[in-house]
Amino acid sequence: MKDDLVEQLMGDVLRKMGGDSAAPAAPAAPVAEAPAAPAPVKPCALTEFVGTAIGNTIGMVIANVDPLLHEQMGIDKKYRSIGIVGARTGAGPHIFAADEAVKATNSEVVLIELARDTEGGAGHGCLILFGAQDVSDARRAVEVTLSELDRTFGDVYGSSAGHLEFQYTARASFALNKAFGAPVGQAFGITVGAPAAIGVMLADTAAKAATVEAVGYASPAKGTSFSNEVIFTFSGDSGAVRQSIQAARDVGKQLLGTLDAAPLVSSTTPYI
Amino acid sequence: MKDDLVEQLMGDVLRKMGGDSAAPAAPAAPVAEAPAAPAPVKPCALTEFVGTAIGNTIGMVIANVDPLLHEQMGIDKKYRSIGIVGARTGAGPHIFAADEAVKATNSEVVLIELARDTEGGAGHGCLILFGAQDVSDARRAVEVTLSELDRTFGDVYGSSAGHLEFQYTARASFALNKAFGAPVGQAFGITVGAPAAIGVMLADTAAKAATVEAVGYASPAKGTSFSNEVIFTFSGDSGAVRQSIQAARDVGKQLLGTLDAAPLVSSTTPYI
Amino acid sequence: MKDDLVEQLMGDVLRKMGGDSAAPAAPAAPVAEAPAAPAPVKPCALTEFVGTAIGNTIGMVIANVDPLLHEQMGIDKKYRSIGIVGARTGAGPHIFAADEAVKATNSEVVLIELARDTEGGAGHGCLILFGAQDVSDARRAVEVTLSELDRTFGDVYGSSAGHLEFQYTARASFALNKAFGAPVGQAFGITVGAPAAIGVMLADTAAKAATVEAVGYASPAKGTSFSNEVIFTFSGDSGAVRQSIQAARDVGKQLLGTLDAAPLVSSTTPYI
Repeated sequence: MKDDLVEQLMGDVLRKMGGDSAAPAAPAAPVAEAPAAPAPVKPCALTEFVGTAIGNTIGMVIANVDPLLHEQMGIDKKYRSIGIVGARTGAGPHIFAADEAVKATNSEVVLIELARDTEGGAGHGCLILFGAQDVSDARRAVEVTLSELDRTFGDVYGSSAGHLEFQYTARASFALNKAFGAPVGQAFGITVGAPAAIGVMLADTAAKAATVEAVGYASPAKGTSFSNEVIFTFSGDSGAVRQSIQAARDVGKQLLGTLDAAPLVSSTTPYI
Repeated sequence: MKDDLVEQLMGDVLRKMGGDSAAPAAPAAPVAEAPAAPAPVKPCALTEFVGTAIGNTIGMVIANVDPLLHEQMGIDKKYRSIGIVGARTGAGPHIFAADEAVKATNSEVVLIELARDTEGGAGHGCLILFGAQDVSDARRAVEVTLSELDRTFGDVYGSSAGHLEFQYTARASFALNKAFGAPVGQAFGITVGAPAAIGVMLADTAAKAATVEAVGYASPAKGTSFSNEVIFTFSGDSGAVRQSIQAARDVGKQLLGTLDAAPLVSSTTPYI
Repeated sequence: MKDDLVEQLMGDVLRKMGGDSAAPAAPAAPVAEAPAAPAPVKPCALTEFVGTAIGNTIGMVIANVDPLLHEQMGIDKKYRSIGIVGARTGAGPHIFAADEAVKATNSEVVLIELARDTEGGAGHGCLILFGAQDVSDARRAVEVTLSELDRTFGDVYGSSAGHLEFQYTARASFALNKAFGAPVGQAFGITVGAPAAIGVMLADTAAKAATVEAVGYASPAKGTSFSNEVIFTFSGDSGAVRQSIQAARDVGKQLLGTLDAAPLVSSTTPYI
């Protein structure tokens, strides 16, 4: 057992037993989809650093990308500045947050890549790059994304056995179009279930609950990075999309609850 | 440290110390390939729910798949009903269990996908779909699969460092044919070692121990979902296949034992 | 909670509390990139076994690969003997160590495959095969690789939130050429950051810090096995390569430190 983990556990156990009032222990690795604390645990003096957020998310900005790197990344050279958002846990929350950022700023999403991560969980981590001609625009895009994450993690529910995720927007923009092929300007939602078997049931529930149009369906071997998820994406009338999500959420909680008795609580506060 | 984890640890520690006789703690995430408890921890009233099993496995059934979803999944429309089995931990055990299900029921395996999972371990999780024209057939296929898992996890041996898996059938059917290209009707076996280096040695041991025919060989970059495994599959005379597996199992336990001193015990009860 | 884990925790907690002086507990699974103990925890009498090392690494040798397996692996038949090195945690350290092995022995690297692993962490595990006509050469290659790992893990820094890795050689040989396309005979270095967002910043820092030539750039969806890393590889003048690495290392520690307050210490001893 690693010494620091033992010390942390000891501190936690003693504190719970009421036998110790030591300073709070260092934040530990989140279990499954339960994401890490939103505030940076240590200040950072680098001008490139923007901030951190839930899910072991970090945001940074590069004012002038080195030409060597620009070429390797294959990003259009007109974007002198890039905003960078990456996380160990979460992809849906970050893409929906980035969608708000492109609506609110003069920047574009130039790259969205999903790692197979979530720190031992069943899902993804992510890397999102914003391109801008001005560094202040790139920085602003990162700031907006980080600030939206508290909301977009609201319908993420995790346990030791898996997780559920639901996202909704009344008007999809270019980040959602790039990542999922969402029709720009329309209401758009996603249901995610892990293990993937639960995701299949969420998809069927959402499809039946209201009149929505299927945009896509991703599974462990198709459209995901081998994550243990089924992701169903759909658009339609705003009320219908919400209704589909709410029906799927209700079913998902019951199913995931059969594998782990711990109550399924929101990672932050539900918004749908 | 997450509060529920701390509380659970505290409960466990106190109980072990003899200072507490509280109700048993909630089941925690399995370590590596050691799978979760077989019974659903919470009842589920959904008619679609069939049951749970070892490995964070869940089984469900959809009587009439929504047409929207049917199209997205790319499954033949003649299968109005689908049975769904998915797990965080395990793929071999589930595929061999599904093979018994297709033998015993009027259903077909229409999809087998392997996620890169095992909850922080080195292997796969899985999603298996059965297609049937009648919902009772799909349900029965899921039930048989779930009931076989206790047996097919019998030669799965896990530690913090990796895992070993061995499977054997006297007569391969269509699930094994679909997943591994096993010749239908013949004896068929697999050896799996993680880290992958150990799997190479298992393959060589199996190939040398008896006269078997190689069916396939999968490694981290070819034929797996980037799992840290080497999987060797072979058919032949029933006695030869078993002999190869037993020789590989003996070698595998010695090798995996060099990385973690904890005894390598079966996840349930060995059957080969 | 698994009983053995509880017992181990209990032992550790009691020992830390000063209430117990039991024998040291069994080594536990490493947290993220912090690798496991280097010595085999249990002796192994198999002639094929060579040794173990940090990162749950195991080394073995097969004197005469079975023809059945040889064909399945797709390895040139002239290599009667193969050396096998595999690990749950680490790929860079193993490839740089293998590079020393091919310089020092009469063997070739015939295969390098990266699993998505690191035991719940953000990176890779690996499988490396050496081919030789004589078993003593294959064994020697494995021995050299294992012995180099203590050094090549020197600039691996892990926390619960991610990891940083830096590698440098004054003269790249055929293992680095095979894995990364490194120009043989030239100084060569890599920077790795996880979550991948941090790796982007390391790449930009390295590119700007000195006059180096980019060899490659890998990200979650391109060139990695969906790991949550960005890997930047470059060659050039020996002093320039080192200078780039040192600048990136300094920046990386500050950035990764914003996600987890635990100090970022070397897995062994820094060598660059």
